[in-house]
Amino acid sequence: MDSVEKKFLKLGAENAPGQEGQQNNDVISLIGDKIPGRPVDFSHGDVDAFQPAPGALDNFVEGVQIGGKQAYTEYRGSKEIREITAGKLAAFTDSKIDPEKNLIITPGTQGALFLAMGSVISRNDKVAIVAPDYFANRKLVEFFEGEVVYISMDYLNFTSGAGLDLRQLEEAFKSGVKLFLFSNPNNPAGVIYSPDEIKEIARLAQDYDVQVIVDQLYSRQVFDGHSYTHLAAQNILNPENLITIMGPSKTESLSGYRLGVAFGSSKIINRMEKLQAIVSLRAGGYNQAVLKSWFHEPEGWMAQRIAQHQAIRDDLVTKLRLIQGFQVRATEAGSYLFPKVPELTVTIEEFVKILRIQAGVIVTPGTEFGPAFTDSFRMNFSQDHSAAVDAIERIGKVVEGYRK
Amino acid sequence: MDSVEKKFLKLGAENAPGQEGQQNNDVISLIGDKIPGRPVDFSHGDVDAFQPAPGALDNFVEGVQIGGKQAYTEYRGSKEIREITAGKLAAFTDSKIDPEKNLIITPGTQGALFLAMGSVISRNDKVAIVAPDYFANRKLVEFFEGEVVYISMDYLNFTSGAGLDLRQLEEAFKSGVKLFLFSNPNNPAGVIYSPDEIKEIARLAQDYDVQVIVDQLYSRQVFDGHSYTHLAAQNILNPENLITIMGPSKTESLSGYRLGVAFGSSKIINRMEKLQAIVSLRAGGYNQAVLKSWFHEPEGWMAQRIAQHQAIRDDLVTKLRLIQGFQVRATEAGSYLFPKVPELTVTIEEFVKILRIQAGVIVTPGTEFGPAFTDSFRMNFSQDHSAAVDAIERIGKVVEGYRK
Repeated sequence: MDSVEKKFLKLGAENAPGQEGQQNNDVISLIGDKIPGRPVDFSHGDVDAFQPAPGALDNFVEGVQIGGKQAYTEYRGSKEIREITAGKLAAFTDSKIDPEKNLIITPGTQGALFLAMGSVISRNDKVAIVAPDYFANRKLVEFFEGEVVYISMDYLNFTSGAGLDLRQLEEAFKSGVKLFLFSNPNNPAGVIYSPDEIKEIARLAQDYDVQVIVDQLYSRQVFDGHSYTHLAAQNILNPENLITIMGPSKTESLSGYRLGVAFGSSKIINRMEKLQAIVSLRAGGYNQAVLKSWFHEPEGWMAQRIAQHQAIRDDLVTKLRLIQGFQVRATEAGSYLFPKVPELTVTIEEFVKILRIQAGVIVTPGTEFGPAFTDSFRMNFSQDHSAAVDAIERIGKVVEGYRK
Repeated sequence: MDSVEKKFLKLGAENAPGQEGQQNNDVISLIGDKIPGRPVDFSHGDVDAFQPAPGALDNFVEGVQIGGKQAYTEYRGSKEIREITAGKLAAFTDSKIDPEKNLIITPGTQGALFLAMGSVISRNDKVAIVAPDYFANRKLVEFFEGEVVYISMDYLNFTSGAGLDLRQLEEAFKSGVKLFLFSNPNNPAGVIYSPDEIKEIARLAQDYDVQVIVDQLYSRQVFDGHSYTHLAAQNILNPENLITIMGPSKTESLSGYRLGVAFGSSKIINRMEKLQAIVSLRAGGYNQAVLKSWFHEPEGWMAQRIAQHQAIRDDLVTKLRLIQGFQVRATEAGSYLFPKVPELTVTIEEFVKILRIQAGVIVTPGTEFGPAFTDSFRMNFSQDHSAAVDAIERIGKVVEGYRK
């Protein structure tokens, strides 16, 4: 087997969110009948239930009307839009962002993540990632032939903070880790890193000269009783060692426009632009214009959207906890829940297929977020409220057929 | 210097088309005054002079209205749009394309190229590329740590065919080349490979079991007196060893939508999708809907567009040949000219900067297309006709100041 074939064997995508259509259906014998109900796809948010933020399409059409200047921006993105966006993100994260040097517009936050990773790591570099964390993190390290060092996060038992094992993090940094990559709020667990955790990450990264990429995709959607700490605002960390990633694909429901931004280290941003030149040239030129409406939603729009999601979270958490043996920590920010299920007679991947076939409910197996999570699945609850609640009932019924 | 730093030193982007704003202006002393005239940016086509093909924006808006299904397609692209597109491309290239297995929608043809290269080559693999050819080809091989093997193309002196050195190609294949990558029509020279050249490439690839990626971005824009031969239609080549890349960014002026497709080998397409999952998830969901209008332009639209470009080519070739010492082969397909200039007192990179500052004319230095092309520059003549002609006059005047 040649080396490129080996590499791609590790890059399986059939269990990735949204790829369920590629799964083989005929290997599982179902216990019990199909359970009727409105299908719910928890693998990602439902942009029909939560419509794109107002103004996006108008800005896109305006971009088309601007013409060539908008179609062919610099690879790092339109200067004008970088200026507008840098101002808004600097205010939001309480950090300094020079739109000429410190920001790049990318095809989605996935694009930002790929470019940032490819700009920092290479063969045999040690990269610390959190377990559990976003499914692509591990795959990215493997694609660039780095070495994954897992840092545990005890999200189920912690209440103040995400539960990152900071001693393990320091040990990893001591052992020569080059990059630490994590999402805040955590995807899939939906928890926020406490001010103390963020300060300690900053201090350790500074002390051990480790570069940090923080994925803050869901950082605008923070629920009542919680506060959010930006790593970019920590003065003890050299800003040239930090990249922050954000984008309007989640709370703002603009995923169909494929937009993200990375900001921070000018050195890494420069490399990201060079890499973008050979990966996809630029984020869609007309699409970039949609960023004009970002952080510029109508008065009250964001507050209402957050309140609606909090209400869904409350009902789902209550319902999930009623299923015998389920454990779940309530989401603090973002739209993910990561329940732990009781012992089953089937693997989590099989259970996920069964749920889809028997109950019309799509979730993502925990193993996408770390090899140890064989007893959990992820749900994005940005869905029609009542359909989501009904789907939990069906999950409860399916579980009974496969309980050990 | 660490290995990632070395890698990025090779990935310079400041001379890449469209990045001229990043160039340092103050190192050159100009000979003579600035020459007034309407600025022309020949680094890419002017989508204000040649407007996007009709129907594109309507299809985009319709995509937004479809909603979640269109925003979150499979990573390889919407099933419905793959079906529509596969049918049109199969007819155009006279080949078989199963929309389930043999086609992926990508963020631009650059996206297709990156994913295809990343799916085929890895460290130390030998990759044959043509000199001259598209500027990103070499950079892609270097990024994936392959080894470039250049194949000469004597485009200036050939009249029947592109002028590829087929003996050199066979020698390269014999020496263990894994992949052959080329553009047809050639970018930057604008020439078409003859039926004999294409047949021989197919035969050699089959005999030596070499994989082939052919970039056919400009293959719809073929000028009078020329015909085009599709490699995908050559039955002697195992279709599992071939990927063809196309997209609507050039003749159709839809670059602002960032759309491309790759079709061919199911094995490579599968890998490309796995890679897309970590690179940018998918081509923009709403953007994909724009492909519905591709190959579906109004009656006569394409013929007229080709005729307009042929008329510009005729005038530009005539004018360029009037400048003493210039040599240029007339474009056979696409919108590129690649004139060879007489000996100058400055390097080609300096001459390109001078042209921009002194005459408001942007072209791309030949060295972007191969290290040997220190005496050529590329022009994309999809521009306002009279502005383009006037710009050639100014080029002629600037040359006089720097002629050896």
